[in-house]
Amino acid sequence: MARLWYRYAAMNAGKTSSLLQVAHNYEENGEKVLLLTSALDDRDGPGLISSRIGLKREAATYTSSTNFLERLKDVEVACVLIDEAQFLTVDQVRQLHRWVHTNDSPVMCFGLRSDFRGDPFPGAAMLLTLADNLEEIRTACRCGKKATMNIRIDEAGERVQEGDQVLIGGNSRYRQVCARCFYS
Amino acid sequence: MARLWYRYAAMNAGKTSSLLQVAHNYEENGEKVLLLTSALDDRDGPGLISSRIGLKREAATYTSSTNFLERLKDVEVACVLIDEAQFLTVDQVRQLHRWVHTNDSPVMCFGLRSDFRGDPFPGAAMLLTLADNLEEIRTACRCGKKATMNIRIDEAGERVQEGDQVLIGGNSRYRQVCARCFYS
Amino acid sequence: MARLWYRYAAMNAGKTSSLLQVAHNYEENGEKVLLLTSALDDRDGPGLISSRIGLKREAATYTSSTNFLERLKDVEVACVLIDEAQFLTVDQVRQLHRWVHTNDSPVMCFGLRSDFRGDPFPGAAMLLTLADNLEEIRTACRCGKKATMNIRIDEAGERVQEGDQVLIGGNSRYRQVCARCFYS
Amino acid sequence: MARLWYRYAAMNAGKTSSLLQVAHNYEENGEKVLLLTSALDDRDGPGLISSRIGLKREAATYTSSTNFLERLKDVEVACVLIDEAQFLTVDQVRQLHRWVHTNDSPVMCFGLRSDFRGDPFPGAAMLLTLADNLEEIRTACRCGKKATMNIRIDEAGERVQEGDQVLIGGNSRYRQVCARCFYS
Repeated sequence: MARLWYRYAAMNAGKTSSLLQVAHNYEENGEKVLLLTSALDDRDGPGLISSRIGLKREAATYTSSTNFLERLKDVEVACVLIDEAQFLTVDQVRQLHRWVHTNDSPVMCFGLRSDFRGDPFPGAAMLLTLADNLEEIRTACRCGKKATMNIRIDEAGERVQEGDQVLIGGNSRYRQVCARCFYS
Repeated sequence: MARLWYRYAAMNAGKTSSLLQVAHNYEENGEKVLLLTSALDDRDGPGLISSRIGLKREAATYTSSTNFLERLKDVEVACVLIDEAQFLTVDQVRQLHRWVHTNDSPVMCFGLRSDFRGDPFPGAAMLLTLADNLEEIRTACRCGKKATMNIRIDEAGERVQEGDQVLIGGNSRYRQVCARCFYS
Repeated sequence: MARLWYRYAAMNAGKTSSLLQVAHNYEENGEKVLLLTSALDDRDGPGLISSRIGLKREAATYTSSTNFLERLKDVEVACVLIDEAQFLTVDQVRQLHRWVHTNDSPVMCFGLRSDFRGDPFPGAAMLLTLADNLEEIRTACRCGKKATMNIRIDEAGERVQEGDQVLIGGNSRYRQVCARCFYS
Repeated sequence: MARLWYRYAAMNAGKTSSLLQVAHNYEENGEKVLLLTSALDDRDGPGLISSRIGLKREAATYTSSTNFLERLKDVEVACVLIDEAQFLTVDQVRQLHRWVHTNDSPVMCFGLRSDFRGDPFPGAAMLLTLADNLEEIRTACRCGKKATMNIRIDEAGERVQEGDQVLIGGNSRYRQVCARCFYS
């Protein structure tokens, strides 16, 4: 049975590298994949998936108005891979879940859980609710503990606690922290 | 570092047995635990945690107006164990997360992810967003696949697709299913 | 596809409770299971599986000369559940692995990883090598850290570091510890 | 508490990419790591760790006569990362386990579980026995199921079932398979 996966992590854990590795593994087996990323995230140009470690690859994009039941209708691939999946809407996650289980075709999503204020991304919360398999990609806080939260910093490196949920602008404005450091 | 845990499962997986086993393990080590369950769930009398396999035990109760920062203020136990945690409010989950990480004291929550319509329980979605560790307690659909969803059935055994989120009344009105059976 | 599972843990984690819960879940779904335990372990009489929390149930037994390809030949159950699986021989684990994948029928094994000297149980090492899914049942050391090792104690409660691998005699002679406490 | 990790996988899953990502994450946090690989594996020149996806990096090497308690004596790094860890000896794994827990310093090992005959690598079996955390890096068989086993193929692409455990020579002579395909 095909599954909807959510591989979640804090910032800077290697989510995109993990996605590109999965794509590579399928293709080494002679199979096709579809890569999608959010049109919100234009830090490397629209439709480019790039990881901090240096891997890059073109991808199709989705917006908040994409209907995935339409978008995936005639797609025939071994796996659909979605980066920045915290930007999916709640309805889009429902569409993906239904598509996986009525087409028996897997979808793997990669993304965050909570924003810099500790609030959920709505699409991420729905992925955590519906995904058949949840997998964490671990990374460490500077204090050495497992990072589960994210903070936003301003240009001077000071922590910012208020503002809009989304401020796309590269890794330099966000940092992963453990929950203890988040509260202190 | 103490952690907030969410052990989630579909109906009838053994969540309560797992909670009572954890309590037993702590107590065998000579330590104290605090058991809490929702006052909503009165199927076995207020404040009784009971598992289908036959284990039973008294527990304190919480309601949607419990403030956990107050409730846990002078509690000194090795672990707080919370059953039916899908009934926590979003704010209560925030309180528990903050309490764990400012007091360095663990809390383990046990509960569902989604209701019979496939909608999230708000507190469960927040636990999935903030918990330091997510662990699934697996159980099977009647078709043999892993159950991740729940359905409600009426007295005649027919599936019900509309109604209020909460209808406490024992296992007989709910059944765990895999996502494929959920959509078919 | 059916799988060979190994749910491993240190002593006193609740392995047997977990096994009995899985059996209960299958039977609630109207399915049959086969329970097996080692004839080595006669602490509760031959063929009795019992957990510290108070659950008990009869089981068939296996010895080191059981050939599982023979033993399971005409068995038609939804799942075979094996307790004290660290006492399986290496060849028996190979038989179980082959049986799962040529009959498409699941086997779940529950047991330890290492003995009181930190040495592997040969059957456990083979289960860790071949099982399709490895799952840990967590429990804590008295110091609060995750217990991964076991120590043997004598009647006076003193740690014993030499002796035979197997000394069946109830929980009272063994205690789970974290690796740091194991070395100190 | 520092831990000994074993991230295991079948061939071609991305073990080396995962190792290089972990190194990158530590270094982004301003910390040092020590990378070690087996001197047995000279497919990319001694002391070079390279992944199929294109990442490469120099590493120190270890042989079967390396004593890790000596080798790591004055090493001060945030994490020791060991590739091709199935080639560690049983004693070397014991040394690493002891070192982690007496120095409170983490070691992450990446490697296989079983060889092309389905036999354990002795060092891998010991890592599976002692590691504080076991994590699987998943990859797929050509049939779509999860690959857990490995097969060796000759120059004509035919499966080889007998021979020495170790035949270093690149990915072209090995292929990952699920257990069902392994037996058929």
